[in-house]
Amino acid sequence: MPPRKLNRDDLREAAEKYKNWGKWGADDEIGTLNYTQAQDVVAAAQLVKKGKVISLALNFDQHGPQGAKSKYPALGRINPLHVMLRTGTDAYSGVLDRRGIRAADDMVVMPLQCGTQWDGLGHVFYENYMWNGYDCREVTSFGAQKCGIEKTKEKMVGRGVFLDVPRALGRDVLEDGYAITCDDLDKTAKTQQVTVKRGDYVVVRTGQMETKLAAGNWDGYPGGDAPGFSFETLQWIHDRQIAAIASDTWGCEVRPNETEPGINQPWHWITIPMMGLTMGEIFYVAELAKDCAEDRVYEFMFVAPAIPITGAVGSPTNPLAIK
Amino acid sequence: MPPRKLNRDDLREAAEKYKNWGKWGADDEIGTLNYTQAQDVVAAAQLVKKGKVISLALNFDQHGPQGAKSKYPALGRINPLHVMLRTGTDAYSGVLDRRGIRAADDMVVMPLQCGTQWDGLGHVFYENYMWNGYDCREVTSFGAQKCGIEKTKEKMVGRGVFLDVPRALGRDVLEDGYAITCDDLDKTAKTQQVTVKRGDYVVVRTGQMETKLAAGNWDGYPGGDAPGFSFETLQWIHDRQIAAIASDTWGCEVRPNETEPGINQPWHWITIPMMGLTMGEIFYVAELAKDCAEDRVYEFMFVAPAIPITGAVGSPTNPLAIK
Amino acid sequence: MPPRKLNRDDLREAAEKYKNWGKWGADDEIGTLNYTQAQDVVAAAQLVKKGKVISLALNFDQHGPQGAKSKYPALGRINPLHVMLRTGTDAYSGVLDRRGIRAADDMVVMPLQCGTQWDGLGHVFYENYMWNGYDCREVTSFGAQKCGIEKTKEKMVGRGVFLDVPRALGRDVLEDGYAITCDDLDKTAKTQQVTVKRGDYVVVRTGQMETKLAAGNWDGYPGGDAPGFSFETLQWIHDRQIAAIASDTWGCEVRPNETEPGINQPWHWITIPMMGLTMGEIFYVAELAKDCAEDRVYEFMFVAPAIPITGAVGSPTNPLAIK
Amino acid sequence: MPPRKLNRDDLREAAEKYKNWGKWGADDEIGTLNYTQAQDVVAAAQLVKKGKVISLALNFDQHGPQGAKSKYPALGRINPLHVMLRTGTDAYSGVLDRRGIRAADDMVVMPLQCGTQWDGLGHVFYENYMWNGYDCREVTSFGAQKCGIEKTKEKMVGRGVFLDVPRALGRDVLEDGYAITCDDLDKTAKTQQVTVKRGDYVVVRTGQMETKLAAGNWDGYPGGDAPGFSFETLQWIHDRQIAAIASDTWGCEVRPNETEPGINQPWHWITIPMMGLTMGEIFYVAELAKDCAEDRVYEFMFVAPAIPITGAVGSPTNPLAIK
Repeated sequence: MPPRKLNRDDLREAAEKYKNWGKWGADDEIGTLNYTQAQDVVAAAQLVKKGKVISLALNFDQHGPQGAKSKYPALGRINPLHVMLRTGTDAYSGVLDRRGIRAADDMVVMPLQCGTQWDGLGHVFYENYMWNGYDCREVTSFGAQKCGIEKTKEKMVGRGVFLDVPRALGRDVLEDGYAITCDDLDKTAKTQQVTVKRGDYVVVRTGQMETKLAAGNWDGYPGGDAPGFSFETLQWIHDRQIAAIASDTWGCEVRPNETEPGINQPWHWITIPMMGLTMGEIFYVAELAKDCAEDRVYEFMFVAPAIPITGAVGSPTNPLAIK
Repeated sequence: MPPRKLNRDDLREAAEKYKNWGKWGADDEIGTLNYTQAQDVVAAAQLVKKGKVISLALNFDQHGPQGAKSKYPALGRINPLHVMLRTGTDAYSGVLDRRGIRAADDMVVMPLQCGTQWDGLGHVFYENYMWNGYDCREVTSFGAQKCGIEKTKEKMVGRGVFLDVPRALGRDVLEDGYAITCDDLDKTAKTQQVTVKRGDYVVVRTGQMETKLAAGNWDGYPGGDAPGFSFETLQWIHDRQIAAIASDTWGCEVRPNETEPGINQPWHWITIPMMGLTMGEIFYVAELAKDCAEDRVYEFMFVAPAIPITGAVGSPTNPLAIK
Repeated sequence: MPPRKLNRDDLREAAEKYKNWGKWGADDEIGTLNYTQAQDVVAAAQLVKKGKVISLALNFDQHGPQGAKSKYPALGRINPLHVMLRTGTDAYSGVLDRRGIRAADDMVVMPLQCGTQWDGLGHVFYENYMWNGYDCREVTSFGAQKCGIEKTKEKMVGRGVFLDVPRALGRDVLEDGYAITCDDLDKTAKTQQVTVKRGDYVVVRTGQMETKLAAGNWDGYPGGDAPGFSFETLQWIHDRQIAAIASDTWGCEVRPNETEPGINQPWHWITIPMMGLTMGEIFYVAELAKDCAEDRVYEFMFVAPAIPITGAVGSPTNPLAIK
Repeated sequence: MPPRKLNRDDLREAAEKYKNWGKWGADDEIGTLNYTQAQDVVAAAQLVKKGKVISLALNFDQHGPQGAKSKYPALGRINPLHVMLRTGTDAYSGVLDRRGIRAADDMVVMPLQCGTQWDGLGHVFYENYMWNGYDCREVTSFGAQKCGIEKTKEKMVGRGVFLDVPRALGRDVLEDGYAITCDDLDKTAKTQQVTVKRGDYVVVRTGQMETKLAAGNWDGYPGGDAPGFSFETLQWIHDRQIAAIASDTWGCEVRPNETEPGINQPWHWITIPMMGLTMGEIFYVAELAKDCAEDRVYEFMFVAPAIPITGAVGSPTNPLAIK
């Protein structure tokens, strides 16, 4: 018998259960990023043993996942449009010489959630509320007056823990629609001999991105079916008091969702506005997975600063695992 | 007697003297970032003692320095234009409910050198050449085919050294036109009891940005007169084999330049294309200055990842000093 | 004794008085543009006597009025950002030859109301309503689902009448704060021996733009004090059943507004959502004024197509007076 | 026996043969648009008989042809990105009321050749030359210093002639790869009882766009195989001294091109830089075709102003056929 589909009552119950509003004061705008304390940053730095830096970012270009085929209603996200304002060909042509310097310059037009990115706390609302009980009308066409990504500019540093779920389960990748359970996460941590702790940045591999990269196209990736967190992992996240969570899929949580029609991305409904959990999406973890499999060390210093665009509800990032 | 103005022969001589082409192989695209080795990253992490993270980024918004009055010929750089693709007001209005999720989304239109930023090695040419001898025609309207900023995605991590020059010289700030000498840098390091080493990321304060912030407007900042590196500091940089250098001004080097008419930003002519030196500009160092003055520790772990936009000649960054 | 300031009751009264909702059916999305009929287009064409085409557009570039000093709260409008995607310098450098064609290409980033422009009927709301009684929530982050500018794509053609108010009043220009009255408009028409008729496109000169152009900067133009239509001209517009009205100022109506604090652009509150009147702003009329003064013909064929950007609430235009 | 492929010698010969450089003076920047004289505009207006306005523009939105499948190397052209700067949902949410007006505003990010558009004379180069012999280096990253589209702001008005080639040939549409000959054009004109004259704006239907619209996707349209002008039509165009020509395809000329490998769009090599012929592409002619078939009148007043973006090499347009 298939599990019962989640409905609005289930979401309401979860919203109450996992609600962290007020936990860090009525003025807080960064939620669970508060879990990481100064001593955690010191301890994280101690994990740097071999001096290896691994980027968890896809390059930002026209080969990114936006524009791929998807059943998901269009969001207006495009791959980054990188345009030049001055070029080396201008230099070669001599047309820059009156400036006394031969230099190139450039610009980007980029939806903030088009590639490897943080979902800020202004990204998702529960009914009329955003994180910490702020009114959703704080996010207007002029940007997020509360919980803008710029509030996190000195966060996103701490201990990183990598959970390679398919590897722990003896598979190459998780298949689309696979709902990662709390048991899966615990089993993975145990297999990898790592313990998730308060204030950690947890990066979870499903392998879906590698499948798309190998196929040479992103069809089905943006908003399509995907392996990802089951709704029950809210409990796991809540108990462990992690700072943030990230994955290699478009939207972290399992798709199709475990919900009745009309409820899309239920895990997001709770994580961002109720828990105050920042989350990372479209993280490229193939290199990290390889390295961890080799040295069997699944913890590292994690530094993934957001670009502090005032009032932004997300940010591209180049997350670094430093081992 | 005022010092002789630099001419093209001086530049040619410096170009030869400080040329690192081929030093890291004919295929190298990241230059002096190679100076930082794995053990340097490990050692940098050991500098994290109190778990404090200090951002060296200005927020990216309409309050940035672009568009301020300047004698400098227009470059087409604007402050970042942050626009929303979905909002909390849409959510409140009920128009998102057919999507089954109430979420906001956003986009930025941003010259890559509009705020706190890295100058990549595709940014400046010497005659028809870019770093490592590549032809400047590798940087076309389609972007930098060589030395794109994405090549640095696992760099920008190492030991940071902060040189608060005005403080060491007993001043609040350096005045516009003040040319920082090798002696100034050495004296500052000595005063601060810090030694600059191979592979370091050196961040230098002039105080100019604080003056502009205090004044409440940026007039004269973008391309105007400024304190900054004298041409002779090329020697200092070259000898110390640093990975990168950054400052709190628009363009790092002293303005007016020390050159004859027709030569603009001579230090850039050499640092980027000849040395292969990546440099940081518009770094916000006021908080770091305060912290270092208090704990007298001028070294730290420095992590300032570029956003790996393929083919970009620069990148916004949120540089972190982790102490 | 100065005239009484307009309050919300006055606006409510005007809203009722000038309301055209339903006049062209419950589904109408173009309002007074309906006034122009086929025979009016034929008659307009008959006005083409000397074959002279006069553009009423400013060029769209960095010399436009956006970014000038203004007391008006920022709207996020910038001058058009024109960037190249391929260039003649690329061609010269030989980097395009592998494509078998040497061609340049370009792109614009442009607020739709940054220069010579039409205000579409989705631009202004009265309380929660837009033109024809549509709910203002029809204009979401995804654009205007009702009254998008694309609905006008076969309009903006008809008889143009130019009213050179300062000239008729014996002045060079109207001063900032001058409120054009119904009498002024009638007097101007009479002096010019022209009669405004149903379905006409009326272009009114204040001369303010010429003052700014002569001064060499736009300070005070965007949202600052300006000559323009008094609130009472609603009656004139309503009676004459014109198709659209345009002027050479930023916002058509007189500024400071004739209202109590808290009510901004009262004339817009009525014209767009209640009357369904499309209006043109930032029209460049200096050449037209000169020509009309010379030949004393103040009527012409007017063709000013909007660019049919789906869901847009405004559009740049290159309005042509064809005489 | 298939016709011989055109080679560079053929192009060189055509370049000389059809070269109009200097014809309108050494300073001319608009080429064949000069052919239309004042009396032609007057005569064109006389063609307005029934007062019907037909737009030849596709709406500009995400349903445009860019991004469709194509073998053609990417040009960086995207469909227009229309974003809102203020919305009706902001209004409804009450967040605009402190401004004293409830208004929406918007912006577009738009390659200038993404939809219905004019190719300006800065668009294509012949070797190192552009129209009238200007150096191609006049088109830099800062735009076209010569032949910018803004130079045409008082042109694009004249007699329009519509040639419905497939209809005259007894077909619904021309198939991909069909090369329209001079005979085809003459036969069409004759069948339609219309004579093409000096200064005309000629709009030619292939029917390809209608095929794509009927199919519901644009695959193969941008840069793919297409019916279009054969190289020999240069003679026809040259002899008739038309002002401009437009069609309903992506690039006017037949594809695959009639050339040896390495020569792409040979007709463009000659029309734009050598003849100085402005051309229109991606014109939507289905409604016009229907109307002309009904009233058998294939001539009309044509008004298709470019948006005068300074230094642009193309422009979106909303071309109007006024009958």
